[in-house]
Amino acid sequence: MNIAAIYHRPESEYAFLYKSNLLHLRLRTAHKDVEKVSVIHGDTYTIDKEKWQENSIDMKLTLKTELYDYWEIEISEPFKRAAYIFHIIGFDKTELLYGDQGYVEFSQEALNQDNNYFKLPYFHEVDRFKAPKWVKNTVWYQIFPERFANGDSTNDPENTLPWGSKDPSPQDFFGGDLKGVLDHLDHLVDLGINGIYFCPIFKASSNHKYDTIDYFEIDPSFGDKTLFKKLVNECHKRGIKIMLDAVFNHIGDDSPQWQDVIQNEDQSEYADWFHINKFPVTYTPGKNFEDATNITYDVFDTTPHMPKLNTANPEVKDYLLKVIKYWIEEFDIDAWRFDVANEIDHEFWRDVRRTCDATKKDFYLLGEIWHSSQSWLNGDQFSAVMNYAYTDSIKEYFIKNSLTTSQFMSNLNNQLMLYRKQTNQVQFNILDSHDTARILTVANNDKDLEKEVLAFTYLQPGVPCIYYGDEYGMTGGDDPGCRKCMIWDKDQQDTDLYNFFKQLVDFRKKNSVVFSEGNMNWDNHQPGVLILSRKINDHSITGIFNIGDQSRNVSINGDVLLKNLSINNSHNVDLSPKGFIIYQSKKD
Amino acid sequence: MNIAAIYHRPESEYAFLYKSNLLHLRLRTAHKDVEKVSVIHGDTYTIDKEKWQENSIDMKLTLKTELYDYWEIEISEPFKRAAYIFHIIGFDKTELLYGDQGYVEFSQEALNQDNNYFKLPYFHEVDRFKAPKWVKNTVWYQIFPERFANGDSTNDPENTLPWGSKDPSPQDFFGGDLKGVLDHLDHLVDLGINGIYFCPIFKASSNHKYDTIDYFEIDPSFGDKTLFKKLVNECHKRGIKIMLDAVFNHIGDDSPQWQDVIQNEDQSEYADWFHINKFPVTYTPGKNFEDATNITYDVFDTTPHMPKLNTANPEVKDYLLKVIKYWIEEFDIDAWRFDVANEIDHEFWRDVRRTCDATKKDFYLLGEIWHSSQSWLNGDQFSAVMNYAYTDSIKEYFIKNSLTTSQFMSNLNNQLMLYRKQTNQVQFNILDSHDTARILTVANNDKDLEKEVLAFTYLQPGVPCIYYGDEYGMTGGDDPGCRKCMIWDKDQQDTDLYNFFKQLVDFRKKNSVVFSEGNMNWDNHQPGVLILSRKINDHSITGIFNIGDQSRNVSINGDVLLKNLSINNSHNVDLSPKGFIIYQSKKD
Repeated sequence: MNIAAIYHRPESEYAFLYKSNLLHLRLRTAHKDVEKVSVIHGDTYTIDKEKWQENSIDMKLTLKTELYDYWEIEISEPFKRAAYIFHIIGFDKTELLYGDQGYVEFSQEALNQDNNYFKLPYFHEVDRFKAPKWVKNTVWYQIFPERFANGDSTNDPENTLPWGSKDPSPQDFFGGDLKGVLDHLDHLVDLGINGIYFCPIFKASSNHKYDTIDYFEIDPSFGDKTLFKKLVNECHKRGIKIMLDAVFNHIGDDSPQWQDVIQNEDQSEYADWFHINKFPVTYTPGKNFEDATNITYDVFDTTPHMPKLNTANPEVKDYLLKVIKYWIEEFDIDAWRFDVANEIDHEFWRDVRRTCDATKKDFYLLGEIWHSSQSWLNGDQFSAVMNYAYTDSIKEYFIKNSLTTSQFMSNLNNQLMLYRKQTNQVQFNILDSHDTARILTVANNDKDLEKEVLAFTYLQPGVPCIYYGDEYGMTGGDDPGCRKCMIWDKDQQDTDLYNFFKQLVDFRKKNSVVFSEGNMNWDNHQPGVLILSRKINDHSITGIFNIGDQSRNVSINGDVLLKNLSINNSHNVDLSPKGFIIYQSKKD
Repeated sequence: MNIAAIYHRPESEYAFLYKSNLLHLRLRTAHKDVEKVSVIHGDTYTIDKEKWQENSIDMKLTLKTELYDYWEIEISEPFKRAAYIFHIIGFDKTELLYGDQGYVEFSQEALNQDNNYFKLPYFHEVDRFKAPKWVKNTVWYQIFPERFANGDSTNDPENTLPWGSKDPSPQDFFGGDLKGVLDHLDHLVDLGINGIYFCPIFKASSNHKYDTIDYFEIDPSFGDKTLFKKLVNECHKRGIKIMLDAVFNHIGDDSPQWQDVIQNEDQSEYADWFHINKFPVTYTPGKNFEDATNITYDVFDTTPHMPKLNTANPEVKDYLLKVIKYWIEEFDIDAWRFDVANEIDHEFWRDVRRTCDATKKDFYLLGEIWHSSQSWLNGDQFSAVMNYAYTDSIKEYFIKNSLTTSQFMSNLNNQLMLYRKQTNQVQFNILDSHDTARILTVANNDKDLEKEVLAFTYLQPGVPCIYYGDEYGMTGGDDPGCRKCMIWDKDQQDTDLYNFFKQLVDFRKKNSVVFSEGNMNWDNHQPGVLILSRKINDHSITGIFNIGDQSRNVSINGDVLLKNLSINNSHNVDLSPKGFIIYQSKKD
């Protein structure tokens, strides 16, 4: 047995309260190495009296990767105190106990020794990772306000270009605003989405507004607070939640705070608001507006226009926490998305989490983090992160063909094992955004391929997000290509794709419980197709995806929920390349 | 290569800021499996421009366990943002990269891909685990106040027994108090200790005071606040730090809060201060005072006299934080030891940490946790825990002979790899306490064996603590045996042992830098002896311990600092069984 590969970590994604008094345990062993794992558990203080160490419960082998098998089980404890140890039997008949002291030979003596057990010393509801339930049933829609719709030409910035008159350059303005969003709520309702993620709307110089000037003001070219309040209310009336984008890693260099530093240098009352390595604050401009060298202060990326905020400074923290609270209290927003969240300190995020929780129930905190995010997702900071690592694998597999099926399943399962079960259920699964090329463009304008990727993504535990315009077949490469003006001209809208998106959203919302909470069952045994079933209780939904370049004949047993390039005659299905069929199993 | 055994975890004990802008990295590989590990690192944002991915630095193989090899290195980054990936070459010539996406084949293409790298996105000083420096130079002395010295017989509780007149039973009182401590400061100064850890001194019914009645009052049988203030001042004058014991997991059932609950049941204003499962609060008494069944509320262990506090209730939290602050502000204490710390919620401890840090600089927070404690030792909660897992191994090896040398070294190294380097330096290494049998008793009254164990323990990275009376050869089994009255009768004091303790304390304090911060170098190649060297820069101290039952001839090269059962003639040493010799290497 590969003992060195066995892994467990108390109070982590390997041992967490899934629900109150329900401890979810995971154990990792080397792939195909272990025949059986059981867990022996009880209350530390009753080990002598109750002799619970004489009983064990089998764990279930759930997800597998190329390297590992993951075993899972849920247990509860009447006194809310758990001592637990794993009893592992290898295919080579090696038998051992694995606990807080590492591995020991299986013996009753070892089982009687309290310090051999891992512990969850007390089940604290306050420490439990809690994700707001409504998120699981949400399909998000991301709006980049400057490019969604121009509803009020009176607030257009100088040099506003005619809507859609050209592909955007980094500094272009097209006049999009909040009135434009309000005007098009019917569209969003028709599409079926029930959450809007707004890119920044606070006062800022650029078109993207990630260089905030004033966190307490709506950018005048987007509208005003009265309008925003109305927009939130109208959205809420329609069952649509609102998420705003908070850019706290850095501030815009046009902000009064930074301007004061430029002027007064180390005498500025804002000098400690930043990370300044040397006064005066200077830099050598680079080729592009956003590049520079020899910057004497810490910035976002290498842009001198986004000086990094010192979020450990109590003044800065107080200021930003007020911002957090203000928009929740005054405008009743439902979620914050935090830009460049990984570069801000954890202490700050803990305060943000507490502020949000104290201000509004079931608030959703989404961090922009592109890499593994365990240290932000333990319950004391974010509800979820932007799940690029997950959706990137989907794109690599279906579109770029750069992963084998085995690698692909391995990647997704590995990502799912990085986080708690309830975290996976609210992860933000985006295939594209204002920061990446549009999914149709990534798919080389192959709409069938796009549909397959979308269908697969909507079957996953995390919640999906539609980037504005994808529903009408908009294209575009990396920023600024992905930030084109929304197509409102009906003749240019792709109605086939739109109808597909409508179906998709409906399909997702109707089955959100099984997609969020259900088990993942992979099947890659049929040549040319990949099958994924999601199951909870007696509700089971299965997707079959043609992953090759030949038509395939597959069989289904249930009602078809969604399909493309698929002809079915009762149980028999002809699945063309890039085709898929998703069905709900008949209940026995 | 055993790829499945490779492990790293960003922002954990595997990747942490050791000092400002100094990132300490660890990688785990299977034992004797890997020939070379190097790390490739740089700033995410400059990977294209600076091409730092073309360089690598070798990691050092430091500690080994029976299962694993640990590789370590320290790196810094000019922009305080680190992307890093491990380049691993096995003895079987397998070569791979291990990073945020798992393992990939070594290639320049993989190295150019930003998402393959682990990240420490920004080096935040506020998130860095910081341990107070003074602790590294401390030798603690634990006082169980009821049994240390009776300095004032006017405050003796009813039925106080004559000092030392019998071995203690659980409910006995002998009249020990704070005046007794004040009277014996000369003793502590002579012994050389520079920190006192007081078991609880707040008002409580029992002799041990772990059943607090009032956290704002000194127990009247111990003295009053004026006396305590004087004691702290006198200690500080002598360079002795003060640590108090805070029992926040539960309160005494004689407390006004619990009495109110008994009286007013669910109408009590304190009903939510506890975890009450059913009113009225009742139980079926057990055989012993501290045992019961059918308790209708959560308690410590199974004792109905210690109802568990609901530390998630803001009122309770406010109250206890005030306690925390009060004793620091008013009495200038230097540290808190938190009883049953593992059963209290993390959110509470985060507030405690912040309160302490805001109230006094370089404050030490010590949690009573007997098992692995990673989730409390990330910098946001405790400075250290009571390191039973570490010292237990020492006792098992030297005294109980239940571990092989290989298992022993493996256990200690494994423990050291559970925590950050700066955490290990302030861990609280106790061989005995009010909760365990005395070390001399554990050693079967073999003073030479005790000396060997002590010498070995004082050589470790964590800080040692003397349990009152050990220095005079006091004995006693588990509680209440270990809580005998201090021996003040000179005829009964073991002066040989006392002199050894004095030497030991002096030796520890003089060399605290190398013991705290130095590398660990094990050598078990000579039969019958175990050698441990500690080294920092050009300061190196080596201990040679006879671990068998035959005399051994060993050689040293340096000045002898401490020894027992050891006769040396220049470089040649005759080491009897249980003997040891510790020397400081000559500087070249």
